[in-house]
Amino acid sequence: MGNPKTIDDLQHRIALLEDREEIRDLIERYAEAADHRNDPELMYALFAEDAVWEAPGFGRFEGRPAILNGLSEIGTTRLVWTMHYMISPRIRVSGDRTNAQASWRVWELATVPGKKHPQPEAVWGGGSYQVDLTRVTDKWHFKRVRLNLELISRYTEGWAATRVAQL
Amino acid sequence: MGNPKTIDDLQHRIALLEDREEIRDLIERYAEAADHRNDPELMYALFAEDAVWEAPGFGRFEGRPAILNGLSEIGTTRLVWTMHYMISPRIRVSGDRTNAQASWRVWELATVPGKKHPQPEAVWGGGSYQVDLTRVTDKWHFKRVRLNLELISRYTEGWAATRVAQL
Amino acid sequence: MGNPKTIDDLQHRIALLEDREEIRDLIERYAEAADHRNDPELMYALFAEDAVWEAPGFGRFEGRPAILNGLSEIGTTRLVWTMHYMISPRIRVSGDRTNAQASWRVWELATVPGKKHPQPEAVWGGGSYQVDLTRVTDKWHFKRVRLNLELISRYTEGWAATRVAQL
Repeated sequence: MGNPKTIDDLQHRIALLEDREEIRDLIERYAEAADHRNDPELMYALFAEDAVWEAPGFGRFEGRPAILNGLSEIGTTRLVWTMHYMISPRIRVSGDRTNAQASWRVWELATVPGKKHPQPEAVWGGGSYQVDLTRVTDKWHFKRVRLNLELISRYTEGWAATRVAQL
Repeated sequence: MGNPKTIDDLQHRIALLEDREEIRDLIERYAEAADHRNDPELMYALFAEDAVWEAPGFGRFEGRPAILNGLSEIGTTRLVWTMHYMISPRIRVSGDRTNAQASWRVWELATVPGKKHPQPEAVWGGGSYQVDLTRVTDKWHFKRVRLNLELISRYTEGWAATRVAQL
Repeated sequence: MGNPKTIDDLQHRIALLEDREEIRDLIERYAEAADHRNDPELMYALFAEDAVWEAPGFGRFEGRPAILNGLSEIGTTRLVWTMHYMISPRIRVSGDRTNAQASWRVWELATVPGKKHPQPEAVWGGGSYQVDLTRVTDKWHFKRVRLNLELISRYTEGWAATRVAQL
């Protein structure tokens, strides 16, 4: 007790708890950037330079510039308004604190440009994120983001007949 | 290592983590009080005496007695039933642990007295809270609560045409 | 400072914070098992051997085998698809770290076999979980799970007229 080894161990355990809190913050900052139509300025600080973003039905982008461009295009052409609720993250930080994995659920409300009708449509989205993170210059960043939407459902229809609608 | 300075530093970092947990608890207790039609007895312990509560469209109340009265009136006249989901809080505690800021998202289901029709209506609510907190006699309290509802939407209509409905 | 007593105290406070994180994880693992139609293999590791599960309208199961059977039957006969969002857990760990209590809210989307119509129906669910936990061989498990659904609502109807629908 009170010896350097014990102190180091406590310091490490505290750091792991702090990492988890920082990663929770990062996830919510991603939600905020997403709700600003994937604003590249807000997204920039969240991703590692060599990050990869992918989501079935939306695309795959390699490297931060491609991610910022790709997300921005989705945000401005395919979405009019969104609200992202990021829920119950599971976080695993590696013992050496250089990398981490996280997964969480997303509950999303969106307004999308209408295809069938000239008016925009209200849409429900639900699914999960699986991400890898890396700690660079003492801050956590996304290294890989995979979004899997299990539910894309028109407000006017619900999901009983079609759970992933083609918008 | 093992010297008083290090120990003090660890103690401080642990206290900051504990503060975050206590603030998360406070947020959920606020949700519970809200779902009891803003019960003043449940709300009382959450606010500092000189707190301010404000929300565009609902009002601004200064001081705990005015907050308890104001919220109670909203809860009993404008709401029949609610379910508040408080999601992904971001928390920043000051270095001296005397004050903190927090923000989170709210996903809300409500039944409100019908205006158009004699029957109550089901309504969706979505938005965010921005709060300042103060630590008084070793416990965290809300000092300022700002609620911004970005979505108030009749169940029968959805939000495609009108995102903030006048109820 | 730096004496064994202080170090022990810090270690204990860190352990309590780690307990909270582990319990958050357990809650999300329960959601994942639930979304696999209450898969008994996924559920197994979450419950203590002598656990009790109960929910008004769904049943009461005593002992892990009965819980796994009972939940599996609900998952395969009464549910077609679900998405469970577990939100804002409140967690209280006992001072000796042998047991804990947690409560949280659930926001649920479900597709259920249709009764009125041959087609499945989309349903909203909302409510709360109250659980007791026990720490066995260094891991947290559910000892008692009580689910109270305050809202069971057909997508096609909403909750204005009937908040707990008979499905």
